Amino acid sequence: MKKNILIGLSGGPSTAINASMAGVIRAASASSRFNTVYGALHGIAGVLSRDIIDLSPYSSEEKLRLLIQTPAMALGSCRKKLTAADWPAIEQVFQDYDIGVFFYIGGNDSMDTVLQLDRYFKENGSGVQVIGVPKTIDNDLPVTDHTPGFGSSAKYLYHTMHEIIRDSEIYPIKNVVVVEIMGRNSGWLTLAAGLEHFMGGVYPQIVAIPEIPFDEFGFLNQVKELLKTEHTVICAVSEGIRNHNGDYVGMETKSGAVDTFGHTYLSGVGKYLELQIAEKIGCKVRSIELNVMQRCSAHLASKTDLDEAVQIGEAAVSAAEAGATGIMMVFERTSNHPYAVRIAQTDVSNVANLAKDVPECWHDLSDQSVRDEIKQYLLPLMQGELEPIRDKTGLPVFLDIRGIHSTRE
Amino acid sequence: MKKNILIGLSGGPSTAINASMAGVIRAASASSRFNTVYGALHGIAGVLSRDIIDLSPYSSEEKLRLLIQTPAMALGSCRKKLTAADWPAIEQVFQDYDIGVFFYIGGNDSMDTVLQLDRYFKENGSGVQVIGVPKTIDNDLPVTDHTPGFGSSAKYLYHTMHEIIRDSEIYPIKNVVVVEIMGRNSGWLTLAAGLEHFMGGVYPQIVAIPEIPFDEFGFLNQVKELLKTEHTVICAVSEGIRNHNGDYVGMETKSGAVDTFGHTYLSGVGKYLELQIAEKIGCKVRSIELNVMQRCSAHLASKTDLDEAVQIGEAAVSAAEAGATGIMMVFERTSNHPYAVRIAQTDVSNVANLAKDVPECWHDLSDQSVRDEIKQYLLPLMQGELEPIRDKTGLPVFLDIRGIHSTRE
Repeated sequence: MKKNILIGLSGGPSTAINASMAGVIRAASASSRFNTVYGALHGIAGVLSRDIIDLSPYSSEEKLRLLIQTPAMALGSCRKKLTAADWPAIEQVFQDYDIGVFFYIGGNDSMDTVLQLDRYFKENGSGVQVIGVPKTIDNDLPVTDHTPGFGSSAKYLYHTMHEIIRDSEIYPIKNVVVVEIMGRNSGWLTLAAGLEHFMGGVYPQIVAIPEIPFDEFGFLNQVKELLKTEHTVICAVSEGIRNHNGDYVGMETKSGAVDTFGHTYLSGVGKYLELQIAEKIGCKVRSIELNVMQRCSAHLASKTDLDEAVQIGEAAVSAAEAGATGIMMVFERTSNHPYAVRIAQTDVSNVANLAKDVPECWHDLSDQSVRDEIKQYLLPLMQGELEPIRDKTGLPVFLDIRGIHSTRE
Repeated sequence: MKKNILIGLSGGPSTAINASMAGVIRAASASSRFNTVYGALHGIAGVLSRDIIDLSPYSSEEKLRLLIQTPAMALGSCRKKLTAADWPAIEQVFQDYDIGVFFYIGGNDSMDTVLQLDRYFKENGSGVQVIGVPKTIDNDLPVTDHTPGFGSSAKYLYHTMHEIIRDSEIYPIKNVVVVEIMGRNSGWLTLAAGLEHFMGGVYPQIVAIPEIPFDEFGFLNQVKELLKTEHTVICAVSEGIRNHNGDYVGMETKSGAVDTFGHTYLSGVGKYLELQIAEKIGCKVRSIELNVMQRCSAHLASKTDLDEAVQIGEAAVSAAEAGATGIMMVFERTSNHPYAVRIAQTDVSNVANLAKDVPECWHDLSDQSVRDEIKQYLLPLMQGELEPIRDKTGLPVFLDIRGIHSTRE
């Protein structure tokens, strides 16, 4: 008897989540095993509140193509952490909608939801399959070679740093630029921001990731030293760098500082280091926070990333057809020359609540062989340009499943 | 007797300055009137210090194409304000290099340099021609319909806001996003950031430009009111908004606040409004500073802007051949349907040290006819994609005239 399927999205946005969703919709719509493809608004929270919509109107190739080029999360997201009390309610919703497979697209927290639900459904014999599809710009999911969304954000950082470098070195006076990059616990994205230097370019001279304890005094000395011979010093710094005690750098400023009105300031490590450089070195300094642009810049998406995101969504449906449950789909890199991946699966318990740091063997970023390995790892993930469908003003057309954007001409 | 020409770049960077420089190099190299094409490093400061290089190696179509796709300023820039004491020294340099025409590419301050030098050369009969080529992302130069560089920055803002909007509305909780945009004195760029709303889109609901006094209390009330019916409120705010007294909004914070260590904080109006919203409204709020990305993002350049930038550089050489001096080249828009411009010239005294604000007749941004006019003005300037020449890693190749970037593979 044919069952329906349900898709949910969870965690932070990226440019590739909707592409994975498009892959699931495409494969499930083409499958003889499934009836209606449903989507839950705002992830598992929307399952509980029964904010569930029929995605059939979006299964044409035309709509799927628009969905693939749309950044962020077309069904909305949530940050809900599931508890055992939620399980029976979710089961009831799944029964009412006759759901046979639940696809959850998200990061390590979302995979905990997959794990919990799978165990519950197995224990009570409900037969619902639960399948995780990875996503996170942070690239910090274990087992998989990389995560959908990471390649596009890495490409944004590599290309944008290339431009910021040019912008920074036009004046003949000494200056320092601190670029703050996302990644609270892992430095994968910051490595992408540093790639030009690793490949023989002058900039950015300093690359700081959370996995390597940050010595603020040593950093300021390094900047001072560099300024003796160079006009411009550019630093790519992860938002999550920590000192030797494990405390976030500039934490006091970020959480406790007050302005003249007694307001609490919330600034990132980039601004903090800017202030330290201004005070301790006294040169011209600017901090740049790449903010949400590094996760939503669909105009600079990696074609490879989007293609793979679609494929891993399709593969998740194949896995469901084969009866899989309690798994997350993963990429295995089978070759670097030429770059090739195959899609496999892993038990979701290998991923849920776990994180993959930049490996220790890469911590000496001045080592040429490390730099070569980083380059070999990163470059293939960033390749290719998407040719988006545009409206008549030139703007890429984004699909508006939730109907919250009004009609534009 | 054939003379040499000299090019200088001045003021802040944009993605189109090098394209104008390419236009000058191309036309001057092809002209029978001129010998060597020289470039001054760091603008007029480099003239005084005789940091002058021969640009002949960059006159091939291949090199010019790379120069056109390179953001910022290939010769470097300066912010030097000329004084009468500098005039004779500059004249001596021009004599030594046998300069017949000096092309200065810059904004209103740079046009003051053009004005001063032209007057001096006329008075003492040296015969050197001085010609201004406009550039500024701010679009605040009088007489010309628009300035090279503005279209690309406007396009960056229009497209990036489109993506930020998607990124902002994924969670089911109320939130506010404040996007800070460049333009200390004029709101042209912020209008581009607001274009999606002017064209019937929901976001950004609030657009604030320096030309319209900013009522902070009214702004907070408007945000509060909007949050009653909408989950997400997005504000596009110029860095230069001022209150009814003419003071920059959040000036105290920007210039005087100290953190717990006694350090002075330097934050923009976006961060200031974020803090006000957090404190007075108490909802989730994020500020985004688009920083230098809005002026250096060559990957999102407007083809129209770059093409016009080249043309106005070429036209400047034609004007020089015709004997012009003490002028700045300008665009005259001759038609909107289809969009067409012709290139003309104006006496540089009409531009030097003057600014063009967003006109008062556009101050009622809620008026549909105003919105239509803004749209008609802005859209043609943002059209077309550049297909850059890329290196084998996929990165657009930037020309490195000053030789400061090391060889990359």
